[in-house]
Amino acid sequence: MLTTHPFDDDHLHEECGVFGIFGHPEAAAHTALGLHALQHRGQEAAGLVTYDGRQFHHHRGLGHVEDNFGNEAVIRKLKGTSAVGHVRYSTTGETLLRNVQPLFAEMEFGGLALGHNGNLTNAMALRRQLVRRGCLFQSTTDTEVIIHLIAISLYSTVEERLIDALRQVEGAYSLVALTPDSVIGVRDPLGIRPLCLGRMEKGWVLASESCALDIVGAEFVRDVEPGEIVILSAEGVRSVKPFAKTASRFCVFEYIYFARPDSVVEGVSVYGVRKRIGAELARESAVAADVVVPVPDSGVPAAIGYAAEAGVPFELGIIRNHYVGRTFIQPTDSSRHTGVKMKHNANRAVLEGKRVVLVDDSIVRGTTSRKIVEMVRQAGATEVHMRISSPPTTHSCYFGIDTPERSKLLAARHDVEGMAKLIGVDSLAFISLDGLYRAVGEPGRAASAPRFCDACFTGDYPVRPTDHLASESGDAEQMSLLTEDIG
Amino acid sequence: MLTTHPFDDDHLHEECGVFGIFGHPEAAAHTALGLHALQHRGQEAAGLVTYDGRQFHHHRGLGHVEDNFGNEAVIRKLKGTSAVGHVRYSTTGETLLRNVQPLFAEMEFGGLALGHNGNLTNAMALRRQLVRRGCLFQSTTDTEVIIHLIAISLYSTVEERLIDALRQVEGAYSLVALTPDSVIGVRDPLGIRPLCLGRMEKGWVLASESCALDIVGAEFVRDVEPGEIVILSAEGVRSVKPFAKTASRFCVFEYIYFARPDSVVEGVSVYGVRKRIGAELARESAVAADVVVPVPDSGVPAAIGYAAEAGVPFELGIIRNHYVGRTFIQPTDSSRHTGVKMKHNANRAVLEGKRVVLVDDSIVRGTTSRKIVEMVRQAGATEVHMRISSPPTTHSCYFGIDTPERSKLLAARHDVEGMAKLIGVDSLAFISLDGLYRAVGEPGRAASAPRFCDACFTGDYPVRPTDHLASESGDAEQMSLLTEDIG
Amino acid sequence: MLTTHPFDDDHLHEECGVFGIFGHPEAAAHTALGLHALQHRGQEAAGLVTYDGRQFHHHRGLGHVEDNFGNEAVIRKLKGTSAVGHVRYSTTGETLLRNVQPLFAEMEFGGLALGHNGNLTNAMALRRQLVRRGCLFQSTTDTEVIIHLIAISLYSTVEERLIDALRQVEGAYSLVALTPDSVIGVRDPLGIRPLCLGRMEKGWVLASESCALDIVGAEFVRDVEPGEIVILSAEGVRSVKPFAKTASRFCVFEYIYFARPDSVVEGVSVYGVRKRIGAELARESAVAADVVVPVPDSGVPAAIGYAAEAGVPFELGIIRNHYVGRTFIQPTDSSRHTGVKMKHNANRAVLEGKRVVLVDDSIVRGTTSRKIVEMVRQAGATEVHMRISSPPTTHSCYFGIDTPERSKLLAARHDVEGMAKLIGVDSLAFISLDGLYRAVGEPGRAASAPRFCDACFTGDYPVRPTDHLASESGDAEQMSLLTEDIG
Amino acid sequence: MLTTHPFDDDHLHEECGVFGIFGHPEAAAHTALGLHALQHRGQEAAGLVTYDGRQFHHHRGLGHVEDNFGNEAVIRKLKGTSAVGHVRYSTTGETLLRNVQPLFAEMEFGGLALGHNGNLTNAMALRRQLVRRGCLFQSTTDTEVIIHLIAISLYSTVEERLIDALRQVEGAYSLVALTPDSVIGVRDPLGIRPLCLGRMEKGWVLASESCALDIVGAEFVRDVEPGEIVILSAEGVRSVKPFAKTASRFCVFEYIYFARPDSVVEGVSVYGVRKRIGAELARESAVAADVVVPVPDSGVPAAIGYAAEAGVPFELGIIRNHYVGRTFIQPTDSSRHTGVKMKHNANRAVLEGKRVVLVDDSIVRGTTSRKIVEMVRQAGATEVHMRISSPPTTHSCYFGIDTPERSKLLAARHDVEGMAKLIGVDSLAFISLDGLYRAVGEPGRAASAPRFCDACFTGDYPVRPTDHLASESGDAEQMSLLTEDIG
Repeated sequence: MLTTHPFDDDHLHEECGVFGIFGHPEAAAHTALGLHALQHRGQEAAGLVTYDGRQFHHHRGLGHVEDNFGNEAVIRKLKGTSAVGHVRYSTTGETLLRNVQPLFAEMEFGGLALGHNGNLTNAMALRRQLVRRGCLFQSTTDTEVIIHLIAISLYSTVEERLIDALRQVEGAYSLVALTPDSVIGVRDPLGIRPLCLGRMEKGWVLASESCALDIVGAEFVRDVEPGEIVILSAEGVRSVKPFAKTASRFCVFEYIYFARPDSVVEGVSVYGVRKRIGAELARESAVAADVVVPVPDSGVPAAIGYAAEAGVPFELGIIRNHYVGRTFIQPTDSSRHTGVKMKHNANRAVLEGKRVVLVDDSIVRGTTSRKIVEMVRQAGATEVHMRISSPPTTHSCYFGIDTPERSKLLAARHDVEGMAKLIGVDSLAFISLDGLYRAVGEPGRAASAPRFCDACFTGDYPVRPTDHLASESGDAEQMSLLTEDIG
Repeated sequence: MLTTHPFDDDHLHEECGVFGIFGHPEAAAHTALGLHALQHRGQEAAGLVTYDGRQFHHHRGLGHVEDNFGNEAVIRKLKGTSAVGHVRYSTTGETLLRNVQPLFAEMEFGGLALGHNGNLTNAMALRRQLVRRGCLFQSTTDTEVIIHLIAISLYSTVEERLIDALRQVEGAYSLVALTPDSVIGVRDPLGIRPLCLGRMEKGWVLASESCALDIVGAEFVRDVEPGEIVILSAEGVRSVKPFAKTASRFCVFEYIYFARPDSVVEGVSVYGVRKRIGAELARESAVAADVVVPVPDSGVPAAIGYAAEAGVPFELGIIRNHYVGRTFIQPTDSSRHTGVKMKHNANRAVLEGKRVVLVDDSIVRGTTSRKIVEMVRQAGATEVHMRISSPPTTHSCYFGIDTPERSKLLAARHDVEGMAKLIGVDSLAFISLDGLYRAVGEPGRAASAPRFCDACFTGDYPVRPTDHLASESGDAEQMSLLTEDIG
Repeated sequence: MLTTHPFDDDHLHEECGVFGIFGHPEAAAHTALGLHALQHRGQEAAGLVTYDGRQFHHHRGLGHVEDNFGNEAVIRKLKGTSAVGHVRYSTTGETLLRNVQPLFAEMEFGGLALGHNGNLTNAMALRRQLVRRGCLFQSTTDTEVIIHLIAISLYSTVEERLIDALRQVEGAYSLVALTPDSVIGVRDPLGIRPLCLGRMEKGWVLASESCALDIVGAEFVRDVEPGEIVILSAEGVRSVKPFAKTASRFCVFEYIYFARPDSVVEGVSVYGVRKRIGAELARESAVAADVVVPVPDSGVPAAIGYAAEAGVPFELGIIRNHYVGRTFIQPTDSSRHTGVKMKHNANRAVLEGKRVVLVDDSIVRGTTSRKIVEMVRQAGATEVHMRISSPPTTHSCYFGIDTPERSKLLAARHDVEGMAKLIGVDSLAFISLDGLYRAVGEPGRAASAPRFCDACFTGDYPVRPTDHLASESGDAEQMSLLTEDIG
Repeated sequence: MLTTHPFDDDHLHEECGVFGIFGHPEAAAHTALGLHALQHRGQEAAGLVTYDGRQFHHHRGLGHVEDNFGNEAVIRKLKGTSAVGHVRYSTTGETLLRNVQPLFAEMEFGGLALGHNGNLTNAMALRRQLVRRGCLFQSTTDTEVIIHLIAISLYSTVEERLIDALRQVEGAYSLVALTPDSVIGVRDPLGIRPLCLGRMEKGWVLASESCALDIVGAEFVRDVEPGEIVILSAEGVRSVKPFAKTASRFCVFEYIYFARPDSVVEGVSVYGVRKRIGAELARESAVAADVVVPVPDSGVPAAIGYAAEAGVPFELGIIRNHYVGRTFIQPTDSSRHTGVKMKHNANRAVLEGKRVVLVDDSIVRGTTSRKIVEMVRQAGATEVHMRISSPPTTHSCYFGIDTPERSKLLAARHDVEGMAKLIGVDSLAFISLDGLYRAVGEPGRAASAPRFCDACFTGDYPVRPTDHLASESGDAEQMSLLTEDIG
């Protein structure tokens, strides 16, 4: 059962993860495993398409990968030696089945399945043109624009048509595509979302993160480069770079929160970055304290780094209940902490009488932070100092991350002091932008040519958000005329 | 649960029924009722689209109308004062959700929902052309061709685009379409499938059969004419006749078996026709007998007519179990009648020691007939004479009826005597073609210009079956590259 | 989905059917078939217990037999060569899973499964005694009393314990029991509910009605006698008659409505009785008419009998929609006939301008009859004469039939003339008690020693309804302290 | 969907958790929350019974608490101001719905619901006696024995009957019972399983662990004492101690693994004990190393304690995937680590080139440990030293913990050196018994009168395992003659 989230967990959410495999006799089973390893990138739906040399096979559904693919009968039907898969987190309350990826289309040259991580910034504008031409859209996803552009392209090979289509789209995209002959991986010219290539004893794989290579026992080969198309086929791996070379702008939030700590992205260990952010924080914003306590699970690596650097004991002062708990009724007389307590409980034995440094990865709306601080104080903490392993989140993301409107972002409305007061802490500090860049291995942020996309902290968008600007100027339209249900 | 049919019930199956309503505050609830009354025209899936002045709402699913629409929450979500609905019987074992109608598309001018009863005979040819142009098909239905033709039409109004599309398609179609402003009904120029217009206190309705008008309390106005387009809108009902006038060819099998006996189609009572066929049979093929026994339920009216004409008592010598029973395991040691007995049981009290006239509507493969005859004999009948209320079914239908390949039709391989022997009856007779025409109120069959489509008995197809001929010449292709499942 | 019945179909309902089989390698599959044939005796739940020589296997569920047993995996798990099964119609809105029979218990001597058709009239009184003793009841069924009486009996064999238990219970019961060594059939001393014995090539069967023998290909041997216990075991069939011989009182309503027309009960064809009732009615209450029309399906045989006797044509003036249709929303503006029209539609072609004799089996509340009459008039009938194939239903049944309280029975509150007025007919007549007895083959009703239980027409109860009298004197108690749900 | 566990996670499993509440207007909602906090004590089924002053309401089902109670409609039906709930982990593959607790029975004095954490050691013997007497068992749980003993007790009040029953049972039990007037908590005389009492603004609660008090905002009052019965009623809390005082023997494994780290049991913080065990381990079995890495999540607190004591950095060298992943197909060609990798992945950035101390809570079969060690080595660790925060598990538990047979326990078959070799580590050490006792705050283990039940490490059972001995002497019998399914 898909549920509403009565208790805001106040995190940004990655919108998708992708996986592809070519030339392996158990393509579907490995793709299911790979998607399971990428489950943190999207929990609302999962889909998988295989090709068996004659036919494509498609299975998709709402819910987790295991709900849909942890079933022998399903996997057995997904015949073939090549496959692409997708996990999805949708930004809207309504999660439509017809939006679950990979999308599939039958074209003149045969079938094509496509999975997309990222977000196109001119999808609405392109969609309008395509509809005018008579193209019929099945979904409300930006991804379908690419499909239609391929279908109507006047070029003849899939590869040429794909390039033709990509030349027209703007924004962030890491794609996996399945054709009768190949599995294709693409990263947008800025390389905003991750995608890496791995090798198995039999066949090749593509995945959003290296942790998905680990689960299938694939060897990490390299990241797909920004602007690169890699084509896995019977001839091996071929690389095409159809775009003019530009400086890349990888999403820095992947390091802070989205990616799994055991992944290595763009050559850097995510866990290592997080620990170094913690150490930077300890140096930038030292405070006298008895214990360093992470808000689990995302705050743990930074807290370890902070504790080691500061020489203050690292303690599990908040215990996380890993059983989900989102749909419980909140009793009317309950303290307003019940929501938080579904997931987190204060460990009084650690907190009582202590000066506590609380380490968390980010503050979005601030609602959860306030409750956690109050819970920590009720458990007896004498001081609570919050340290955040990202700079203040002040702007929305248009490149594939679910962010609230700016007006709901706490840091867009208050300065740090104001935020500290609202959250109820004795002190509050965020990692500096330069500290963040140092933790990833840069000397600091080069304002003229920043190495990463950090628009959520700076408003410095690497691509013009065409549709967003149109919508602000009142030019927007309803994405779909249809509400749809399946009985 | 959708089930296989382990026990062939050996009937031809209608493939669809449609219903539309305009200008009624409870459009969805009435459409659900109307579809329920048309349930006999399609039991594998049902769908309903409404328009609320701003948005379309779609609900569909596999199974019966009640399974999908007998639920207040579902109906409440289907807001609006206009609606179209569809029930579907699919010809293949695989019933795909994406094929469930009404189909819906968003076009430049807004949304369009379309439900179709019938079958286009040049859909494959058109589909190939459209795909070559870059059109992406969502379904494997012939109906979607019409949608794309509308989408790419260079005309501007829905009405003009629809006419433009219909000029390109061949075959049988009774359509209901829902647009933001109207509900549109269409019958193909030959009027092969039925469609009628009714009036309610508030608003207008379209339905495949008049029995669906009865259930919603609508008054029968008239049949939509062959080649006519009726447009129900705020201005009332408008009629357009864009096609050159041709002689109509209504499907005579609608009278014999498909339509409900309480429907009046093309001005004639279905029940009345069936009784008159029985009377004709009694005159054409009299035999000395003690009882006239229908194979229930479809054989009942003809048996009443036969019994009255022949002066032989009408008796329920076979009792039908109306609980479904298709999925039971057939015990290995069971007599081969178990399949038949799920549905029919001999009423020994009526049959024992009697000369029996068995009346059935048709013989397709003959498998069920043979078992029923054997069951009747085991119950003590001394003679079994079978009378069939249709001529021998010798040809396949390409206009919306699920027929086996010719090679599986008993009458295509054997003469009447041979059939009698195989079925195990003492005598067998079919209604003559002229007798059938007389029963419907014609003087007989005018060979040069027959009043009805009777191709399944004569092979005289009123429209060239383009796709079928292409497929016979080896030109056919796979309808879809995709198998699809939803978890 | 189990649904409420928004549209009262205004019939009495049989509460159960039972089936048992001993010594057959496919015991479960045959029992499922047998229960399917008995589906008309109970549609709310079904259960089946087998014994494989070592263990009992139990499967049960709400809904139809096919919903629960039309599944190979389920049948394959129900191993063993002996089985008992049960279909249930519950009298209360709440259908509890824990009440679904057969009930099962593990006793000192081993396991025992028990299925019951009928109703015990002193179950509440016995239950109170047993609870006082420390017996824990799992269900709210009267049947469980028998189980506990067996468990605490001081006799040692199952047979002796069963007899010990039966000596304490009063009321109507046809039982099938499964023990490690045998399948046992029992009929109460008055033989109120039916039970018959059949023989298969391998093994023996017991069934509520002979139609269930037909479906499994068993030969009818004989009815189990009132007060008889038959024990099917490896030694064959053994009969025990532990009760003093009394005159039997078979339920006459089984002939009128409950039993299937193709069943032969107590040596008499049900179909034959119904036709003879029709003929009696035609003689007793003749009226000038143009057509005789049954209310389908239950009124059909009597209408055939009436029409033949009266020399008036039999016509299907009302067409039944066999698709269920109970859960549809009734549009607010619909005529009050929508409920009835879900199931029945007038066939105008037959009714218009005609004097109609409508034949139905009974009138309970009269609500449906009134709507049907109005529908028939609206279809153009000039006169409507209703003929009922049972005497007026004036009393409740305590022996296994779901009857409304007396105050809701139309015939308990009005004389025939008053009823005719309320229902809106030109004339109304019921079969006389003597006519009914004649139709079953008796000379008439012997008031001092009637051959049948006809208490619903006469109030002449063959057994004192102990619990009912206690409940009327305010001595009743809540049947269960528990409401229960399974997630 | 309940699934098999293809990938042994090789932990002992707690079998149950209980929760009770009296005098609160939202009893069901709070009980659901409490059970959610106790979810780690049983994940296979959950049940909840409330009493509304007139009736009991029961809901139960297989799966997690949220699956069954995270639904407003369910909670709304569970009316009343008192409730008891239960989470269950069953020891057998077959999880029967009829075994899901709380069990409920209607007795002479009214209804009684009972939830049980622990295991009775003479249940089989008592069951045999009760069945002989005519008692019918519904479940195969030991708990039902208590219900029947209460039902047949000759005492009159619930309290007296309960004491009468408890005097006959042996073994471990923490019980919550719901009666019309009260909620009752019981701990067995040895206090083997935990149970604590909390106070809310309105009403009182009982819970297996204090973390369940936290989630409902209840204040911790005290542990229920070994051998104590506490009665929560309109009169407040009353305590009864019907048993002779004996030295208590709380289960020490609750500290090591079962209880949540944020719980305080028997006055001692679970998290604190685990950290102190880690410190003891560091002192007892020091080794030169570069990093201390926990096997997450259970090994984390001990690893923190070890790292702090040893002065070696604590690092997340193994990352846990919290999405379940048990039902995925293991591809045939996958390395044998796939099973482990569903849940754990090596964090190469931390492990490569390092001497690693791996900290885990216990070794049961050793299968998972071996795979984890191999995975850690493949990620580049140069040395792997395993430290276990419990003594070697050499004996089975009969008091409510799911342990494999002795022959499957690695420590029962091998000495530490042999285990080290099998698991593939450079060194292996377990905490000593005395070290364990010190970590809980005792001076050491008093061999003559140990403070805890530590039978799984010592074989020193505090209660004679009657049924187990009978079963070893071949006296055992099948627990149930019935397999049961619900459709």
